[in-house]
Amino acid sequence: MMQSNTLPLKEQCVIMSEEEDSKKLGELSLKYASSFKGKIHTLPKVPITKLSDFAIWYTPGIARVSKEIEKDKDTVFTLTGRWNTIAILTDGSRVLGLGNIGPLASTPVMEGKALIFKYLGGVDAIPLPVVAHTKDDLVNIGKAIEPAFGGINLEDIESPKCFEVLKDLSNNLNIPVWHDDQLGTASASLAAFINATRLTGRKINETKVVLFGAGAANLATAKMFIKAGVNAKYMIIIDSKGILNAEREDMDHIMLTNPEKYKLALETNKEHCTGDINNCIDGADVLISASKPVPGLIKKKDIQKMNKEAIVFALANPLPEIWPKDAKEAGAKIVGTGRSDFPNQINNSLIFPAVFRGALDARSRKINMEMAIEAAFALADSIKDKINVDYIIPNMTDHEVFPMIAARVAMKSVEMGMARRTATYNQFYDEAKSIIEDSRKEFNLLLSNHLIKGLNEIGGV
Amino acid sequence: MMQSNTLPLKEQCVIMSEEEDSKKLGELSLKYASSFKGKIHTLPKVPITKLSDFAIWYTPGIARVSKEIEKDKDTVFTLTGRWNTIAILTDGSRVLGLGNIGPLASTPVMEGKALIFKYLGGVDAIPLPVVAHTKDDLVNIGKAIEPAFGGINLEDIESPKCFEVLKDLSNNLNIPVWHDDQLGTASASLAAFINATRLTGRKINETKVVLFGAGAANLATAKMFIKAGVNAKYMIIIDSKGILNAEREDMDHIMLTNPEKYKLALETNKEHCTGDINNCIDGADVLISASKPVPGLIKKKDIQKMNKEAIVFALANPLPEIWPKDAKEAGAKIVGTGRSDFPNQINNSLIFPAVFRGALDARSRKINMEMAIEAAFALADSIKDKINVDYIIPNMTDHEVFPMIAARVAMKSVEMGMARRTATYNQFYDEAKSIIEDSRKEFNLLLSNHLIKGLNEIGGV
Repeated sequence: MMQSNTLPLKEQCVIMSEEEDSKKLGELSLKYASSFKGKIHTLPKVPITKLSDFAIWYTPGIARVSKEIEKDKDTVFTLTGRWNTIAILTDGSRVLGLGNIGPLASTPVMEGKALIFKYLGGVDAIPLPVVAHTKDDLVNIGKAIEPAFGGINLEDIESPKCFEVLKDLSNNLNIPVWHDDQLGTASASLAAFINATRLTGRKINETKVVLFGAGAANLATAKMFIKAGVNAKYMIIIDSKGILNAEREDMDHIMLTNPEKYKLALETNKEHCTGDINNCIDGADVLISASKPVPGLIKKKDIQKMNKEAIVFALANPLPEIWPKDAKEAGAKIVGTGRSDFPNQINNSLIFPAVFRGALDARSRKINMEMAIEAAFALADSIKDKINVDYIIPNMTDHEVFPMIAARVAMKSVEMGMARRTATYNQFYDEAKSIIEDSRKEFNLLLSNHLIKGLNEIGGV
Repeated sequence: MMQSNTLPLKEQCVIMSEEEDSKKLGELSLKYASSFKGKIHTLPKVPITKLSDFAIWYTPGIARVSKEIEKDKDTVFTLTGRWNTIAILTDGSRVLGLGNIGPLASTPVMEGKALIFKYLGGVDAIPLPVVAHTKDDLVNIGKAIEPAFGGINLEDIESPKCFEVLKDLSNNLNIPVWHDDQLGTASASLAAFINATRLTGRKINETKVVLFGAGAANLATAKMFIKAGVNAKYMIIIDSKGILNAEREDMDHIMLTNPEKYKLALETNKEHCTGDINNCIDGADVLISASKPVPGLIKKKDIQKMNKEAIVFALANPLPEIWPKDAKEAGAKIVGTGRSDFPNQINNSLIFPAVFRGALDARSRKINMEMAIEAAFALADSIKDKINVDYIIPNMTDHEVFPMIAARVAMKSVEMGMARRTATYNQFYDEAKSIIEDSRKEFNLLLSNHLIKGLNEIGGV
């Protein structure tokens, strides 16, 4: 429930207007969904000009290709589309802000993701909402479908199930497995954090980071930040019961139900702070909130207690936990949100298409934390010379950053011995750029020839 | 092994040349596979012209579409691409003539199938080779992926496993499930049979049909022919051990391992013929062979014993069990094969794209035998006024037949109460035609703009 009645009138009005905007967007979404009936489709990528071409693309000629793969399994990456095809796998147990709505109702979201994968990363991504009741169900499905895909993007799976599924599949499969709600969000936050520290002259290992919310996104962010050099001792994680600490009375329960969270509870907060945000925000450099879409959850007085030139990321969607204006008034120097209508949108769409592009181009057997961190640094570096308080992270229309990230991720895969294929940075960069541009060209051609209708053609805006 | 050394020299030469052709086709297939690296890819089907469009196609707007589907599950067919998306599901246990080469090596074949589905039927078909060791594994995967697909095309699964998988999935899922190696082949054969009986003035229920080979294709053909009106009493099925009959000593074994075959053994051959083809071919009207690609397996003397104006379908690929010329010399009036370089190619590509087109357009919950039979009659009827001994069945370039079949299949689904959506024949026909033509237009546009390269552009022929 929105707690807007506890807020000043002005902010209530802003929220009301945001709600109306959201509602309007939703109605447009629904209208267009029923016009277009899907967001991606398949098309041939080989020529067919005469009947006899089918004897090459299908039986009898094709048997020769199958024999080649039977003989040498890795040729499947050079002889079929597997190299560029991934599954977007979900059980629909935690879809956007909607909760456990099940696989069927998650379909539109998976289709949207597939659209972004293609448009920004040139990746052929197949929505795969499945019936899976347990962690093991999902893991078994992931194992079964491995031959069909060059990678698996896990999506919208509830926590803590998502941690186990990611771990099990990563360990068992020889293709990259990625859970975007963990790794994508963490990686985008890390990129923004890197540039924010650059801009405020901080050293990563000396920053005190407070994480508000302990869902999949913030737990992954905590892990990744620590791996990237943030000192765990000074890190604070706050969940719905307050500040996480090694002596909290529910630690036994956490150990059993959420081992990732348990590990972080032991590793962080070495001063054993307890209580709520008031008790730990003093002297914090960075506040990353990923909790509920309720402006006012983070208060101005919380921000006021932070260090000078504070860095605040309020990432709940569609409404941030504190409005950027309020955070700035309270002393924050740099504010990021999940929204495209404010500066510094911390958006995992900047990460996942490029990470998969790079992992696929290297024919990588894995995506690990190091590659996700490399992607974050690449994203941050891509605008290194242009950063300012309102531009610490690129936006989705900065197309040039995607091949840069892809090439760095591919190189990292090679460096770590996980790539089936090696090349130079420039080769990976050129290839990624060309694949992404070709996708865009094909799309634009369909659009300009009205084979994809414009919104104006179907009575839209 | 080819037994060509038992054949006259002339036929040996023909085979040798066929082998060379096949080898050449195979080498081209391999070469082009490594140039094109896949046969289908995904592309957007919605417009993207500005950053804010993503707020409609993805979060936050998309949540509204998910809510709608959560409220009313069937809206998934009007609001997402599920209505036109199918899986091509295989365990790779019986791939073309290659046997159990496993899922990975089956990928090129599944991709070829997906290409044909799109090109001829406008269907978005996703290759899904999976790791599945048992019948239950395959059934469980089929059940798990149901939310993602509007239909499932089972492909290249070994017999008798394929019968159980088809039955279990058809019974348990609310989307059409089809095993092309059974139903597609049977349906194409039935279409050819219908026109052959028309041309030779036979009544379907008075024909004596001999089936040579008892794999998935011929067992399905037997079932479908009986359902379509052929009298089972006069039907003869011959497997590798000879003529199937209710008193054969391996009937207990067959009952346990292949219940479909067992049922047919009880139902057919009421005169209890035993032995080999010599003992049952006397007075046969129709011989349908689907056994091994060995010309000479069926001999001229076998054909000579058949009734006047005999109908012979020798369907093994790439080499028929008897060459058409020999069958004709021995008295056959109408000869069909699986090959495109002889008249009367009995080709399941004439059936499966259109059957799925129709089933999908009706949002059908099932594909049953009646719909497959309707497809066969529609295919036969499409050239009713033009048939002759060398043209009893259309070929793949007769594009106008596909929407005709699709509309008849859709109407049959409506008639049988399995459709989620109803329309007139003309509406279904127009819709199918338009969907197929649009796919073709998109494809041709990519081709003419060199975004799909021509074979000549990559050094081909």
